[in-house]
Amino acid sequence: MSTNEDGLLGPKGFKIRTISCGINTPKGTRKDMLLIATDKPASAAGVFTTNRVKASPVLLSQSHVSNGLAQAIVVNSGNANACNGKAGMSDAESMVNEVANGMGIASDLVLIASTGVIGRPLPMECILEGIQESVTSIELDPDRDAAQAIMTTDTVPKEHAISIDIDSNTIMIGGIAKGAGMICPNMATMISVLTTDAAIAPGALRAALCHATDSSFNCLSVDGDMSTNDTVLILANGNATNPMISTEQSPGYPEFVAGLVEVCTVLAKKIARDGEGATKLIEIEVVGAASDDEARAIGMTVANSALVKTAIYGNDPNWGRIICAVGYADAESDPDLIDLYLCGRQMTYDGQGLLLDEPDMRAALSSETIPLKIDLKIGAGKATIWTCDMSHEYVTINAEYTT
Amino acid sequence: MSTNEDGLLGPKGFKIRTISCGINTPKGTRKDMLLIATDKPASAAGVFTTNRVKASPVLLSQSHVSNGLAQAIVVNSGNANACNGKAGMSDAESMVNEVANGMGIASDLVLIASTGVIGRPLPMECILEGIQESVTSIELDPDRDAAQAIMTTDTVPKEHAISIDIDSNTIMIGGIAKGAGMICPNMATMISVLTTDAAIAPGALRAALCHATDSSFNCLSVDGDMSTNDTVLILANGNATNPMISTEQSPGYPEFVAGLVEVCTVLAKKIARDGEGATKLIEIEVVGAASDDEARAIGMTVANSALVKTAIYGNDPNWGRIICAVGYADAESDPDLIDLYLCGRQMTYDGQGLLLDEPDMRAALSSETIPLKIDLKIGAGKATIWTCDMSHEYVTINAEYTT
Repeated sequence: MSTNEDGLLGPKGFKIRTISCGINTPKGTRKDMLLIATDKPASAAGVFTTNRVKASPVLLSQSHVSNGLAQAIVVNSGNANACNGKAGMSDAESMVNEVANGMGIASDLVLIASTGVIGRPLPMECILEGIQESVTSIELDPDRDAAQAIMTTDTVPKEHAISIDIDSNTIMIGGIAKGAGMICPNMATMISVLTTDAAIAPGALRAALCHATDSSFNCLSVDGDMSTNDTVLILANGNATNPMISTEQSPGYPEFVAGLVEVCTVLAKKIARDGEGATKLIEIEVVGAASDDEARAIGMTVANSALVKTAIYGNDPNWGRIICAVGYADAESDPDLIDLYLCGRQMTYDGQGLLLDEPDMRAALSSETIPLKIDLKIGAGKATIWTCDMSHEYVTINAEYTT
Repeated sequence: MSTNEDGLLGPKGFKIRTISCGINTPKGTRKDMLLIATDKPASAAGVFTTNRVKASPVLLSQSHVSNGLAQAIVVNSGNANACNGKAGMSDAESMVNEVANGMGIASDLVLIASTGVIGRPLPMECILEGIQESVTSIELDPDRDAAQAIMTTDTVPKEHAISIDIDSNTIMIGGIAKGAGMICPNMATMISVLTTDAAIAPGALRAALCHATDSSFNCLSVDGDMSTNDTVLILANGNATNPMISTEQSPGYPEFVAGLVEVCTVLAKKIARDGEGATKLIEIEVVGAASDDEARAIGMTVANSALVKTAIYGNDPNWGRIICAVGYADAESDPDLIDLYLCGRQMTYDGQGLLLDEPDMRAALSSETIPLKIDLKIGAGKATIWTCDMSHEYVTINAEYTT
């Protein structure tokens, strides 16, 4: 497995176009639309938010991806098209139809994702103009900045691509992701678009995507708020020359899943590190839990604790808050067994505090990546969760978002 | 029912003593110990944290209150005595024994609660000296500032007392509370101590306290972090002349419960308004839910949303975040039915945004109390939840707590 930074364009046979059509900022000032296409229908799969309130683009993509094939994906930032009622669904359909008409393909081969503010009507005139421009100029895109076009409060674009060998054939998997706030447990989080030139059947692709999402994006929390628009989409166009991966039992499936997990994990960590206002990536490793699910529940509870996140922001080795969050998680633990390690230093043994070298801990906590290990010593369950610290800047960003 | 501000000393026959014994700040600088006593064993009841990690004082009070009688309560701030292992329990027992010896009563008539930092050994020498001083000078207390003595990051003391008439006898119920952070759902939250001169049997008192806690302190969230030390204690010494309230079916029980609910609710709202860094009290009324429990679950999820709390801090009528939180709550809702009212203005009808007068909304959101009503229109379940906004100051306080 080797990495490169070509993102979506790593895999052979994909074209992208990014433009600024003026959705929430004046046209020309900020990229806000991305179109991805391939030459023929590709295997396609998607994972979506489990929030009861689903944005119209989520509902439409869920419907279109159910047949396992797609040829294009249109993504906009600047407006989530959520809570817009019947008009919202009609607008999402118009966007998809515009892409389909322009490309001369069936509408249900087009997927869609939107991100941005909730509850505002889409400015359809500029959006449809933008789609027309994207479709006609898709061969020409000079910028290759797909990851940039889907950013909202993100501060850096997030992309990653790798190549893997399956039976002596080189396969590329590339992806982009956005998401800095409203990032939270138990879902298919934020927006990520993945491409691969692997030859893989829709059912196997869907299984691989679920598996990869489960151990990457679903192990991520910025603020505990599950979005209305979370969407992960993948297209596999089969331009690589590997023998078709028909099922989860086929040769090559394990290698493909491992590659997809790698891409999704790198993107998930990039999202955590770029969480709204974040100054640090926190990597929470839970071991010794009753089960993997319980390990994840405990890790997520710690990741969502505002008290833990603010303490780490302040370089404060206040491990009592971590033990406290473990205790109120909905999972088995024994307070008298917990061993806690922060930045590689042991904080507690059997739940009791050990003597701290406070200046050393403060120095360790001032680094950009904070490893936290929680050993419950009651079973073999384990999970790794990624989150970020909570800073003044998080409050500033979110006290001023819609205006 | 009439109110007064005598707090714990409203009810006849209680004595208190508050002192500064130097637990986490130099002796004499800040009140950090409170002793409450009555002349003979009183009916007693307690409600405690459901966190798996329980501080030693919680475990000890749970044990002592199980017989339904108590005569004294000792409370300290500055140190939670949590995660201190066997030494922690031994220290809590020493504190209780010191009170019992000084008063010449049995140890199991003494209850205890501690609040402050987790995982630091208690400075027992100054604490035992403080208890000796408190016991010997309890008749003399000049300050009547019990609510002050149990504060940690609180900015104002919280007390409330009322009088009610039962069968022409006047009964007083008084209480104090502390708690500004680590305040969270599904528990008996923070520390509150209540006194009453009502004649009421232990079983009826316990039932009344559970009922009152459930609709007050358990409907409160500051930051979603459930403490290791949450404790609510009540003593009823029977000094009033009402006929004994023997059971939940006895005359006078409904009036007593109504009074206790009133005191606990006022204290809960004071805690929310004084939440760490809070600038506003947010009162979330959920109606039309499938059940009262589901209404509470939805209200708590909204109350714990960092995105909702930061938006309200910023006077931002970003109602999409509220609808989003309703959607990911673990309770039934239909996104296409939700009516949302913020500061008395309707934001959505059937889940769709209505036209906002944004300057008017910003002005309304700048007040100190923010009413939020969520009508799910699917059933008759309802609940009211209290929380506060999330400000820069919350981050400042919690990035710097232990040092």
